[in-house]
Amino acid sequence: MKHTTLACLAAMLLLQSPAWSAPEPTIPGYSLGQPQVARAPYSEADLAALKKVMLFSDDDALALRQSKPILADQVDAILDVWYGFVASTPELLRYFSDAAGKPDAAYLAAVRKRFGQWILDTADANYDQRWLDYQYEIGLRHSRLKKNRTDSARSVAQIDFRYLSALTIPVTTTLKPFLASKGASPSEVERMHAAWVKAVLLQTILWSHPYVRDGQF
Amino acid sequence: MKHTTLACLAAMLLLQSPAWSAPEPTIPGYSLGQPQVARAPYSEADLAALKKVMLFSDDDALALRQSKPILADQVDAILDVWYGFVASTPELLRYFSDAAGKPDAAYLAAVRKRFGQWILDTADANYDQRWLDYQYEIGLRHSRLKKNRTDSARSVAQIDFRYLSALTIPVTTTLKPFLASKGASPSEVERMHAAWVKAVLLQTILWSHPYVRDGQF
Repeated sequence: MKHTTLACLAAMLLLQSPAWSAPEPTIPGYSLGQPQVARAPYSEADLAALKKVMLFSDDDALALRQSKPILADQVDAILDVWYGFVASTPELLRYFSDAAGKPDAAYLAAVRKRFGQWILDTADANYDQRWLDYQYEIGLRHSRLKKNRTDSARSVAQIDFRYLSALTIPVTTTLKPFLASKGASPSEVERMHAAWVKAVLLQTILWSHPYVRDGQF
Repeated sequence: MKHTTLACLAAMLLLQSPAWSAPEPTIPGYSLGQPQVARAPYSEADLAALKKVMLFSDDDALALRQSKPILADQVDAILDVWYGFVASTPELLRYFSDAAGKPDAAYLAAVRKRFGQWILDTADANYDQRWLDYQYEIGLRHSRLKKNRTDSARSVAQIDFRYLSALTIPVTTTLKPFLASKGASPSEVERMHAAWVKAVLLQTILWSHPYVRDGQF
């Protein structure tokens, strides 16, 4: 009986404290680290070269991690801003809409949960092969190879290539006030913002792989 | 005799004053607005949609134009920094090297002249069809379709796709001190820098067209 109580208490603490690596709540379609995710066509060595060219340093990884506690309890507010932008931009809303132009609310809601987790994962900056594999999976889900499949959505067949890296700008521009809202100094906000620009652009380049002709990536 | 002297004086003034729309000195391979440049596979309407998604506003165009007189007499110093970065980054220097890894000095020098003009053209922010057509030409010259041809270089067959948009970061990060070196306020420097990030990323997306599978751009 005593052992059971202690085990329950331990389990509760484990679930409450992110520092204890509590398992993430289950998000449908979120498959980072899952065995069904295919191996990415790029390696950790490829990533190291790309980070070098993008001036992505250890300090950028630290700045991203510094942003995590600032952003963690603002995730819903950030998503409200991003979804507001998508909703007011027909050029983007069409990617969540059917052929007749009607937005798919269930699809938008399903993606939103993974988008929230993506904010936290980007702030974690844990760039291992598992993470690379999931970036490739995200790329596939934007392309005609796998779009709509995860959420059984009935929407257009692909997100056009041109908008992947383009989204770096609205995502990171609208993030800046959230980075600044918890008292970080202007120079710290600039440092975190610059790291976010690099991290998002880096990811969108990786996501682009399925769109690029064989041997040209 | 008198007429000849006056004509010479007029010609000299014309060559000295950019405000008089002096013809650009001839840069080999620089073909913006030339009849041999093919029509781009994207239109001004496509560009307007992309600018909208990238939050590229009229104020960004103004900020770019504001940067032109600041940068114009620093072009060589900027190129020194960029070429220093390429020279010290084997992952990039190989794109100017032959199969054995030997850098092609003549190729580097030929590209440098156009690169300097590119700084001024980017600051001009004159986004018409002529400009779009030349962006496509620049993309072709990065891809295996036209790389090396303009300068009769003997270098590797393509610049890999992943580095096109990636270069937005080192180009705009190293530009910032030059934007700040003529007394603009910190907020004006931020404004010009943000416009440059958008402008360079926008261009690299357009340059990517030849790499993208048919119908997926």
